[in-house]
Amino acid sequence: MSSSDIFIGEVIGTAVLILLGGGVCAAVTFKRSKAYQGGWIVVAFGWGMAVLTGAYIAAGVSGAHLNPAVTIGLAVEGGTEWSDVPLYILSEMTGAIIGALLVWVVYYGQFYAHLTDPEIVGEPGAPTKSVPGGQADGPGPVLGVFSTAPEIRHSVQNVATETVATIVLVLAILTQGLNDSGKGLGPLGVLITALVVLGIGLSLGGPTGYAINPARDLGPRIVHAALPLPNKGSSDWSYAWVPVVGPLLGGAIAGGIYNIAFA
Amino acid sequence: MSSSDIFIGEVIGTAVLILLGGGVCAAVTFKRSKAYQGGWIVVAFGWGMAVLTGAYIAAGVSGAHLNPAVTIGLAVEGGTEWSDVPLYILSEMTGAIIGALLVWVVYYGQFYAHLTDPEIVGEPGAPTKSVPGGQADGPGPVLGVFSTAPEIRHSVQNVATETVATIVLVLAILTQGLNDSGKGLGPLGVLITALVVLGIGLSLGGPTGYAINPARDLGPRIVHAALPLPNKGSSDWSYAWVPVVGPLLGGAIAGGIYNIAFA
Amino acid sequence: MSSSDIFIGEVIGTAVLILLGGGVCAAVTFKRSKAYQGGWIVVAFGWGMAVLTGAYIAAGVSGAHLNPAVTIGLAVEGGTEWSDVPLYILSEMTGAIIGALLVWVVYYGQFYAHLTDPEIVGEPGAPTKSVPGGQADGPGPVLGVFSTAPEIRHSVQNVATETVATIVLVLAILTQGLNDSGKGLGPLGVLITALVVLGIGLSLGGPTGYAINPARDLGPRIVHAALPLPNKGSSDWSYAWVPVVGPLLGGAIAGGIYNIAFA
Amino acid sequence: MSSSDIFIGEVIGTAVLILLGGGVCAAVTFKRSKAYQGGWIVVAFGWGMAVLTGAYIAAGVSGAHLNPAVTIGLAVEGGTEWSDVPLYILSEMTGAIIGALLVWVVYYGQFYAHLTDPEIVGEPGAPTKSVPGGQADGPGPVLGVFSTAPEIRHSVQNVATETVATIVLVLAILTQGLNDSGKGLGPLGVLITALVVLGIGLSLGGPTGYAINPARDLGPRIVHAALPLPNKGSSDWSYAWVPVVGPLLGGAIAGGIYNIAFA
Repeated sequence: MSSSDIFIGEVIGTAVLILLGGGVCAAVTFKRSKAYQGGWIVVAFGWGMAVLTGAYIAAGVSGAHLNPAVTIGLAVEGGTEWSDVPLYILSEMTGAIIGALLVWVVYYGQFYAHLTDPEIVGEPGAPTKSVPGGQADGPGPVLGVFSTAPEIRHSVQNVATETVATIVLVLAILTQGLNDSGKGLGPLGVLITALVVLGIGLSLGGPTGYAINPARDLGPRIVHAALPLPNKGSSDWSYAWVPVVGPLLGGAIAGGIYNIAFA
Repeated sequence: MSSSDIFIGEVIGTAVLILLGGGVCAAVTFKRSKAYQGGWIVVAFGWGMAVLTGAYIAAGVSGAHLNPAVTIGLAVEGGTEWSDVPLYILSEMTGAIIGALLVWVVYYGQFYAHLTDPEIVGEPGAPTKSVPGGQADGPGPVLGVFSTAPEIRHSVQNVATETVATIVLVLAILTQGLNDSGKGLGPLGVLITALVVLGIGLSLGGPTGYAINPARDLGPRIVHAALPLPNKGSSDWSYAWVPVVGPLLGGAIAGGIYNIAFA
Repeated sequence: MSSSDIFIGEVIGTAVLILLGGGVCAAVTFKRSKAYQGGWIVVAFGWGMAVLTGAYIAAGVSGAHLNPAVTIGLAVEGGTEWSDVPLYILSEMTGAIIGALLVWVVYYGQFYAHLTDPEIVGEPGAPTKSVPGGQADGPGPVLGVFSTAPEIRHSVQNVATETVATIVLVLAILTQGLNDSGKGLGPLGVLITALVVLGIGLSLGGPTGYAINPARDLGPRIVHAALPLPNKGSSDWSYAWVPVVGPLLGGAIAGGIYNIAFA
Repeated sequence: MSSSDIFIGEVIGTAVLILLGGGVCAAVTFKRSKAYQGGWIVVAFGWGMAVLTGAYIAAGVSGAHLNPAVTIGLAVEGGTEWSDVPLYILSEMTGAIIGALLVWVVYYGQFYAHLTDPEIVGEPGAPTKSVPGGQADGPGPVLGVFSTAPEIRHSVQNVATETVATIVLVLAILTQGLNDSGKGLGPLGVLITALVVLGIGLSLGGPTGYAINPARDLGPRIVHAALPLPNKGSSDWSYAWVPVVGPLLGGAIAGGIYNIAFA
């Protein structure tokens, strides 16, 4: 696989992943959206199909990691060269930033209407109000369109949740070699992976919003910090390390489990 | 592929697409429907399975474009002859009109009950009332059974949203050649495409209702204008160009991206 | 295919179809059920997965028609011998009756609790009360666990709705020969068919509850009439011909369309 | 298949199954979860994707029974040696216990917040309050994160419900040999099995919460009894035999039906 294949596949694939993933968060968050308050089933299917679409587009080009935790897991397992890891991660971060910008383009009017609605942001200068369905603990739902926040802020548990959820994801991806007769991530493998992410979202997404992907969280958080949105609130940098460390740890552990148990 | 294959496949396939797609909009809109207020998950799955059904029926006959934006994307990419494009688009428009008429047949009594209910349409001669769950901005939900309307009316953003969403769709379709070992749109490719449309609906459908297909919007809008429905309200022709231009632009851009990045 | 294969496959497959299909209607209808008021998405997925399960079990044995309308469609198209049609239909009806009895077994306590709850059935001898979420027009929700009833009672429209919906179903099934390289209803064909039924339910189920299968409606209606349920209300025989005639008509028309357009 | 393959595959696969399955119950039960009150569609899809993920990971190693009822059904049918049955069941129970412990890790803060919230547990020493959406009959929703409880407590019906639901599951699994050209549980077989479980949950889960797997119920119940959770309430041991006996009976009956009807 050439460097340009890795770059093109991962940038485009991750951009599509974050466009659709951040998109579904916007879709259920903003009042002036047809999917407003669509419920957790909408969010979980939205992210699942985001993985399906991004991975399907990138699979034949770069192998469709779209996630530094997957890249690390594959490097530990041996399927990806350690020398390719920096390029993969750089490409994934680039794609994630592009994807988050595209969410802003697609929902431009909704962002503006939401962030200037006195019922939502309160009087000028007042602290951001909480919104029904928003996170109970942490910045309000506008950051939630970009990045994750925990329902209960507790570093050890939050890291543990992200780690365990990522182990499940990466273990399922690594096992594909056992199931798909070694021909790489075909359409059926993409579908299964997307449904695994659907399952992780439904089941393990409750406490932290399942980043399970450092690029998915950090890239959009950078965009939130950089965009000139009115009344956008904090980018919650104090939490930003959790959805980076937890997933990377989970990916590495999954690679180790795979090598010990299945190889 | 013969001209009659293209015509038959695209007419029947697009008719089924619009019958099921318009059908789900009717299903959640009308009070006297078992799916009344079924929520966005019902709408998004309804359109996804509409693509699945229409494309599955047409795939072996015409290749199942069912969408002028897909036809344009394939023409730019090179998979479809430019000389076949007019026939494809004509057939898709014909199918879309037939499909919208069939929605009217299937929901005939519901249309009538809805459009003569004083609680919904107000006193004779009064302006159409808004309905909970209806579009915040634009004609009420009866047009919504046929065509799309934006939540926030802003031409540039609305075109951008439709363009970006269609790029994702057409890019996924074009990538099938890389994934499906060149044997055309088999059942698995149909399934993946349907799930991509599900994902686009969940994630990017919030602002404009995701036409992502000029025939899907324009064909049924013509039917809305032509049918002798009581109290049907405006056909909102001032918006009609957006879901034509945005998707065509998106299809062409996707063809270009594919040729530059993946070919 | 031997007669005993047809009988065994169709009886078991249709019994599973109706057990799961009737089961999901019970699941959302009864107060003492964990899925109470689960919404239309639950009903539509329940029936879709009912088709998946029944057809998967029967596919390798009898071809998994599970539906007289499918049998008629295949006979018109030429894939099934006319001489096998009576046995298929008899087996499907037998299976449907067994399936409806199994719903009663699985939800035995729920039926009893529901039908003796004064809030639901009123004082002894009083007419059945309507229940939120029940059919607006026709017998209450207990019959709805067994058979379909229209939201608006109008024979011509109700037949038209069932006919159109069944054409879509049977056309998709007949087209499998074009897509699946002639190897019969494999697992992927079963999955696609199930998702087509999901789509029909979401989109075209609003007016009549989508019988699209004479055995699905008539078999359980016989069971409703025969079971000694307290306060069970009418079996609504005056409507019973609609979900028989509509689907059979649709199946035959689909066979004709297929032979003219696709063969 | 070696003993260590059976042990590793079944422990890891069942642990993932119960982690995601118990996880979705936690996700909809706890107030401080993003999926709080997500509805039955979330629960049913959560368990379906739990099966998909666990079975996909284990399929190439141990055959992915993940369920003593499946093991018994395969032993009756002849696909699994009776001499391997004890190891399978021991491994499944071990995995189920590990999975339930992981649910506790992932939702640690949520358990604590829930179980110390006076609105939920009442004053110290007072009996556990019922919670909206909780079981109508039996211990409250905290046990529901671990184990099943019936809506109406009636041993004969409860066993019948579990038995019938398990027959459907095991029959579908046994039939895979007829459909999948004998190459074992490939990715498509895993997907179909997961969707069968989705269907069983939607349709037959209403009365008892569909254990359909002795390890799924008994393993987590042991964990509930052992964990030092405050105000956790009873482990409801008087019901514990039902989701063991019903599924084992169903598995054995399914094996018998398969041998008589399909072999």
